[in-house]
Amino acid sequence: MQNKDLEGMIARVASRNINMYGKDFLLTWEKSLEELEAVFDTAMILRRLRQENISCRIWDSGIAVSNFRDNSTRTRFSFASAADLLGLYVQDLDEGKSQVAHGETVRETATMISFLAEAIGIRDDMYLGEGDRYQREVGQALDEAVAAQVLPSRPTVINLQSDIDHPTQSMADFLHLAEYFGGLDKLKGKKIAMSWAYSPSYGKPLSVPQGIIGLASRFGMDIRLAYPEGYNLIPEIEALSARQAEASGGRFTITHSMQEAFKDADIVYPKSWAPYEVMQRRVPLLHAGDTAGLKALEQECLANNAKFKDWECTEDMMKLTRGGRALYMHCLPADITGVSCKAGEVAASVFERYRNDTYREAGWKPYIIAAMILLGKRDAPARTLQALFERGRSREL
Amino acid sequence: MQNKDLEGMIARVASRNINMYGKDFLLTWEKSLEELEAVFDTAMILRRLRQENISCRIWDSGIAVSNFRDNSTRTRFSFASAADLLGLYVQDLDEGKSQVAHGETVRETATMISFLAEAIGIRDDMYLGEGDRYQREVGQALDEAVAAQVLPSRPTVINLQSDIDHPTQSMADFLHLAEYFGGLDKLKGKKIAMSWAYSPSYGKPLSVPQGIIGLASRFGMDIRLAYPEGYNLIPEIEALSARQAEASGGRFTITHSMQEAFKDADIVYPKSWAPYEVMQRRVPLLHAGDTAGLKALEQECLANNAKFKDWECTEDMMKLTRGGRALYMHCLPADITGVSCKAGEVAASVFERYRNDTYREAGWKPYIIAAMILLGKRDAPARTLQALFERGRSREL
Amino acid sequence: MQNKDLEGMIARVASRNINMYGKDFLLTWEKSLEELEAVFDTAMILRRLRQENISCRIWDSGIAVSNFRDNSTRTRFSFASAADLLGLYVQDLDEGKSQVAHGETVRETATMISFLAEAIGIRDDMYLGEGDRYQREVGQALDEAVAAQVLPSRPTVINLQSDIDHPTQSMADFLHLAEYFGGLDKLKGKKIAMSWAYSPSYGKPLSVPQGIIGLASRFGMDIRLAYPEGYNLIPEIEALSARQAEASGGRFTITHSMQEAFKDADIVYPKSWAPYEVMQRRVPLLHAGDTAGLKALEQECLANNAKFKDWECTEDMMKLTRGGRALYMHCLPADITGVSCKAGEVAASVFERYRNDTYREAGWKPYIIAAMILLGKRDAPARTLQALFERGRSREL
Repeated sequence: MQNKDLEGMIARVASRNINMYGKDFLLTWEKSLEELEAVFDTAMILRRLRQENISCRIWDSGIAVSNFRDNSTRTRFSFASAADLLGLYVQDLDEGKSQVAHGETVRETATMISFLAEAIGIRDDMYLGEGDRYQREVGQALDEAVAAQVLPSRPTVINLQSDIDHPTQSMADFLHLAEYFGGLDKLKGKKIAMSWAYSPSYGKPLSVPQGIIGLASRFGMDIRLAYPEGYNLIPEIEALSARQAEASGGRFTITHSMQEAFKDADIVYPKSWAPYEVMQRRVPLLHAGDTAGLKALEQECLANNAKFKDWECTEDMMKLTRGGRALYMHCLPADITGVSCKAGEVAASVFERYRNDTYREAGWKPYIIAAMILLGKRDAPARTLQALFERGRSREL
Repeated sequence: MQNKDLEGMIARVASRNINMYGKDFLLTWEKSLEELEAVFDTAMILRRLRQENISCRIWDSGIAVSNFRDNSTRTRFSFASAADLLGLYVQDLDEGKSQVAHGETVRETATMISFLAEAIGIRDDMYLGEGDRYQREVGQALDEAVAAQVLPSRPTVINLQSDIDHPTQSMADFLHLAEYFGGLDKLKGKKIAMSWAYSPSYGKPLSVPQGIIGLASRFGMDIRLAYPEGYNLIPEIEALSARQAEASGGRFTITHSMQEAFKDADIVYPKSWAPYEVMQRRVPLLHAGDTAGLKALEQECLANNAKFKDWECTEDMMKLTRGGRALYMHCLPADITGVSCKAGEVAASVFERYRNDTYREAGWKPYIIAAMILLGKRDAPARTLQALFERGRSREL
Repeated sequence: MQNKDLEGMIARVASRNINMYGKDFLLTWEKSLEELEAVFDTAMILRRLRQENISCRIWDSGIAVSNFRDNSTRTRFSFASAADLLGLYVQDLDEGKSQVAHGETVRETATMISFLAEAIGIRDDMYLGEGDRYQREVGQALDEAVAAQVLPSRPTVINLQSDIDHPTQSMADFLHLAEYFGGLDKLKGKKIAMSWAYSPSYGKPLSVPQGIIGLASRFGMDIRLAYPEGYNLIPEIEALSARQAEASGGRFTITHSMQEAFKDADIVYPKSWAPYEVMQRRVPLLHAGDTAGLKALEQECLANNAKFKDWECTEDMMKLTRGGRALYMHCLPADITGVSCKAGEVAASVFERYRNDTYREAGWKPYIIAAMILLGKRDAPARTLQALFERGRSREL
């Protein structure tokens, strides 16, 4: 490695005007552009250090809490890998899947798990209006506990997917884009089609498409959000993305034609989700434990989905993109026609051509999470990175 | 930090006449006063070292086994945090909740999990007559395996709550008291009301109140154990506490009036439990898997509890205490009237006033557990603590 | 310790002609004799280093994935202990017990969990024709991901029990034999009775007896495989063992008499299993989720088993062995007559006499697993061992 190269990257982190210490990472649009770039830089530095067999272990002991209120394999592994990379031991907080806790229970539990904790990763995307709210409640409890000198230090909360945003996913996606196109600055003006796609399953969260439009609109991209009528995202997030796109010199267009979105696109992200309106109707049913009502809603929604089976990322669709060679993206697992289902989001031949790209995309997630932890826990993150570099301890003997 | 201060604490550990190496920590009343004080000292030293950013990692590799035969969040996190603080990786032994194993199965499993283990934490408080017995059976299996040179060293067993005692809780409680009142020696003569309180739930174990009276009676305190008639604890533990109180220059009184117990109290610990007689009747029903019988017993018990809804730690009750300002304690989670239940152990305003105190109380538990592990595994614990101090390795970079 | 002794052991590893780097450990018969001996040597060296309080931590961070598609306690602890010994954090991949994944799902999951992983331990022994196939599919996915530069390095896959072989068990068993008889070279010509034995349970996998005959036949042993007619193992493995026995100067005989097998045996390994034919019939029933069919097959099989209750390792049986003092072996837990069941594989007095031997046998497993990981991940394993030795970092302070 060119040491100079790495030192340059660390210097860039040092030069950034950021205010992330003691804060949580919940939504990308709460962070300044410099802060987002600090995450990208730090993630790249950590990956480079590891590649150079330099240990990124900041902590000699300490706990990272993982709280998955929904199933997960890849995010669970990403969080565990990130925590371990920094020297933290992961302890799961298993509250049972459907439990919705409020008030004293949240406050108390947040404190009880945090006496020796440095980070808390939370995935809670099942209930519209709950996931983000819950993460904030945990963060507030931690603030109070630190203020009352109950906790020796403030663990940083990382949103591992909420009802609103999925920042570890979208940030990994964009680091992949930066690598693919040769830098974040190359994204300006690039056309990205964030499109709904057909899936035989139901109730997929809105956080991935929201995360993508919420982040793409920060970098001056030309965003086309495409979905069948009635399949909109949370209206406030669509409006926010439009405002952000304008501010960053980009564009934000909603279309109800997948073809239109794909036309001349540089990047396509075809992915299923449940309409906002359906997600809203689910909440009282979930709270009430109305299984029959949920079943009926699912049937209604699946029947409606079936009208849009042609929303599939086929070879013909790909031909519409710039030079027929747009970069295909997905958060995985994708519903692949003829592979994981009869009819799905993407044709098998398209997916196969970009398979390794989607894997590389996912490979950034552990480093993004590690960077978020480091930046939430270090007042002078560049100094810490420099110290890791200078210590030069071997990661493997 | 004053290094001298810390070195003084370590010197105090060195001066103690203790015999804990190779032993388990199951019941506080099996330990000498010096041994209990060694645990307190060591816990304080470990917390101080961590505060000074000095790594407490004694092991570079090694396993800590956690065996929770009952649900737990806070004790699970305390054990994991303690093990990780010392450098141990926690591996759960999940035997299924209701299984009661004996004989060869216990002996064999205890050995199989211990080849590279340093500590085994066991929580088993469901069955009267089982939890403590099981922990001893594990300990005996380990003794045999070490004697037969099957195991390279003896993991230390830590009681994380049995049917009899809950020493990691009571010891954390008392370190909190020591901090609150300015030293363990200040506890002599202090009035502590360990009182039953109403709860809408049922079957809470006896180990917390037993742990408190079993430990308070070692320090010359004036103990008032209060409960409605018929709600007594294990008779042998009440008798033991009375004997210990006398020996230590304290007092031990049983009363059936919460008011009487609270009168002029310096400390109050209002907490629900199921009567000993009910706990005894549960055992054969649990063994027989007699769900209907258990349900009937629960109904009977809840109906009886409901007669004592006025056993609540209200503001009026608190006014009876010394200067109206007794320290309120609880092992958490408390049943808070109007917050976690309609009517419970404590009024919301009382709990809120002491909330951070109860959190601080809980915050000692990881250090108490770490101290117990260290003292069970180190022949010359003060030398180990001194070595940690002198090594001075940063816990965080 | 004699440093010379340890350095001699390391030199022996250095001198071996092996090709294990970047490879998986799935079946002992895929490995050369030198490679098997390298595993034995490395396991012994790691145990010695730990005994000398020298840390075996090769990694400062890194993940070991455990994937148990069947219940396990001792193998789970062995894998966790081994991973931790080398410095890896264990993250469980919990896919649900009965799931049989193929194709894209396996390929994708294998990659997603491996970005920062060094080792993947898989136990999958439920379905004949599935476990080994699945492990190979994971390995192939990893090869592809490394070739495509999706993964920075190749995690090594360790077979923690498949439908075919159980190499971590058989290798631990043979290290025990080597220690017991004073060296692997002493095994030549030794008579080992790998015998079916009666058990009241059903459906025990074939991998243990297959692993034993597949390994014993490499060392010139005189193998007698004994079972009631119809209780044969996978025919290809029996044939393979016969060929290997001949090649190594040993013998391989099948008999339908436990007595005949025990006659003059130096070692006896009485252990129940389900007949190959029954295991074959289970597969389509399991795939079809045919619970009634499985129940009927179980009843049929148990009824058949019951005809062979006299296949028990009694004191009388033991008297038939060489000097009446053959070494009794078992992978544990054994079905002990009058202890863990009414009638089982072994008489209580026989088991009790050899109990500590079976424990010692099991005690090698963590070191065998650690050795397999190290050899799969290190191009110059002897150099790594020497580096551990020279670094001389204390495992415990």
